[in-house]
Amino acid sequence: MTVADRPVIPASRFAERLERAVAATAAAGLDAMLVAVGSDMLYLTGYEAMPLKRLTVLIVRRGAEPTIVVPRLELAAAEAGLRTRVEIRTWDETDDPYALAVAGIPAAGRIALSDTMFAMHVLRFQAALAAEAEYVPASTVLSELRMVKDPDEIALLRAAAQAADRVVAAISAGRLVGRTEDDVAREVRERLIEEGHDTTSFAIVGSGPNSASPHHDASDRVIQAGEPIVLDIGGTLGGYGSDITRTLWVTGGDATKGPDPEFAALFDVLYRAQAAGREAVRLGVACEAIDAAARGIIDDAGHGPAFFHRTGHGIGLEGHEDPYLLPGNTLPLRAGMAFSVEPGIYYPGRYGARIEDIVVCGENGPIVLNEAPRELAIVDG
Amino acid sequence: MTVADRPVIPASRFAERLERAVAATAAAGLDAMLVAVGSDMLYLTGYEAMPLKRLTVLIVRRGAEPTIVVPRLELAAAEAGLRTRVEIRTWDETDDPYALAVAGIPAAGRIALSDTMFAMHVLRFQAALAAEAEYVPASTVLSELRMVKDPDEIALLRAAAQAADRVVAAISAGRLVGRTEDDVAREVRERLIEEGHDTTSFAIVGSGPNSASPHHDASDRVIQAGEPIVLDIGGTLGGYGSDITRTLWVTGGDATKGPDPEFAALFDVLYRAQAAGREAVRLGVACEAIDAAARGIIDDAGHGPAFFHRTGHGIGLEGHEDPYLLPGNTLPLRAGMAFSVEPGIYYPGRYGARIEDIVVCGENGPIVLNEAPRELAIVDG
Repeated sequence: MTVADRPVIPASRFAERLERAVAATAAAGLDAMLVAVGSDMLYLTGYEAMPLKRLTVLIVRRGAEPTIVVPRLELAAAEAGLRTRVEIRTWDETDDPYALAVAGIPAAGRIALSDTMFAMHVLRFQAALAAEAEYVPASTVLSELRMVKDPDEIALLRAAAQAADRVVAAISAGRLVGRTEDDVAREVRERLIEEGHDTTSFAIVGSGPNSASPHHDASDRVIQAGEPIVLDIGGTLGGYGSDITRTLWVTGGDATKGPDPEFAALFDVLYRAQAAGREAVRLGVACEAIDAAARGIIDDAGHGPAFFHRTGHGIGLEGHEDPYLLPGNTLPLRAGMAFSVEPGIYYPGRYGARIEDIVVCGENGPIVLNEAPRELAIVDG
Repeated sequence: MTVADRPVIPASRFAERLERAVAATAAAGLDAMLVAVGSDMLYLTGYEAMPLKRLTVLIVRRGAEPTIVVPRLELAAAEAGLRTRVEIRTWDETDDPYALAVAGIPAAGRIALSDTMFAMHVLRFQAALAAEAEYVPASTVLSELRMVKDPDEIALLRAAAQAADRVVAAISAGRLVGRTEDDVAREVRERLIEEGHDTTSFAIVGSGPNSASPHHDASDRVIQAGEPIVLDIGGTLGGYGSDITRTLWVTGGDATKGPDPEFAALFDVLYRAQAAGREAVRLGVACEAIDAAARGIIDDAGHGPAFFHRTGHGIGLEGHEDPYLLPGNTLPLRAGMAFSVEPGIYYPGRYGARIEDIVVCGENGPIVLNEAPRELAIVDG
């Protein structure tokens, strides 16, 4: 997919989102929302500012035009990046941008701060406002908006998922035995870019015992014949994330080095658990019920303690965002929510396995964006 | 350069850094330093945790072992990533990791927070501690340590700079006219990875009037013969950043489409200003004097208002870090400080130019890490 072929979020959408954010901020009894550089700003305005330390902040509040405070040298970038009408105020290298940003906001007000705003900015805002001011994370207001994806966002998530599917297929078909995990991870990153991703976020290549570490990165360990590899890769395409996990077993072409019966049995349980998780997705079902559907099968097979993370996380402009699929989250699924379904079973020191797809809750059940085969891929490698 | 050829920071270095951080925290009258995932954690421990929302935090304080609080599913990743002895405490998906992290810290104490800690964590720590607690950015303590690079860090910065030099050379030698900036930016990212970078951070391709926007990204604008391109690219290699800017002029092979005399004159001023900035680098000279050396030449030529950003920024594990080269920064240069020297001249709507190198302050003057020619590259493109 070339950049020109990609789905594009229409400009009018940003104006709508900003309007809803202003209304939601007021409805939550907040005096203002301060949105730092990051996915919230991108979502509301289309502007993907560089995550530099000079303050760039969007100010959202009732009865005032949305305003963005930007360093003067980023003025042209902001004008080019903003996809809707936002008043721009610039600051020079020797100005105090925090004072500029909070002008007109009640000093002892209730203020929302975007979740990923850097502490260095948080502390400066707190100093610029009164000691009595109260702060809440902006996700308390924005998650509601961002969780439900519109059709253009889903099209971007699908494009990212399909690109990641192709990378999994290419890696599975290639040489693996005798290479380091690092080397395979480098190939993953190159292929993600070749397949249309703008950035690569992670390339987990967990071979042999490393497959038992859910957040293993990649190391200088050399891949051997007769062991599993957990491949968990992702990046962004048009701002939206991919995130897929498949488990391979490499034989090195030696038929005697296939999966041992114990691993095959473990994988079978996992395969059924992941399918149950996907299939449980439908309107109104609680997030925790998706978790329970997958976890129940793993528990029943006696592997419960070996599945020690949540079943999934939302995905969109961030790789991990609301909704989270874990026990205790009673939030009911709505149409357009997008999230991973990724149970895993891990025996530290030995091996592990995980299967992950990105799934959207549709009006009539799950819409699974990844299409790569989920079976244990037994490859020569 | 393959991964195996890279300079490696020896494990003993992390123990030393942690020891110095504990001492500096105590000396600054701080009760504790809370270090979130990011470059501070990487610097102190070698652990490059994924920037996920689950809390991972390093706690540094006098009279206590350095401790890291990590989600249980990241335990194996932490054990593999930590390059020095740090006590690990894990938390499960339904625990309160903030309470765990602040156990033993005076609730009304003076606490340093790493500069890039997310607001969502800052607010939870503030809620877990007393209202009287005071907070400062951890850079007040850690900048002193991180600003001065050791020889291994300089070797990594040099490897990154040389890789970026090769990318500039390849892009300058290739086809440009008729391609979009986006397309050239994609080639830049691919080549940075091919040349040994682990990540690409930015690929500014500012053609024609876009060359006048210092933080222009890249757009669907098609590059024309007879205009300048500002190419400002960078990524990370072994954790350390590259950042180089060169200005090209593309003729499309048409000798009549060379730079007009006005642009050539502007570039000549810039070239002399950047050289003056580099050459002013030596022990004990104030950061602002480097800025003044470059700025003075641009001011004298009457382009002062068209150079509206600082002359440079430190570089290391972050792309922008202390020391900053701008008016008012009287910090004297020490041996091992590494920073960009990057004056620019911009006429919005028309064109602009910038030259940037990474320079280390050596015992006997500047050590310039980039070697790509700095002259205006007049290319067929």
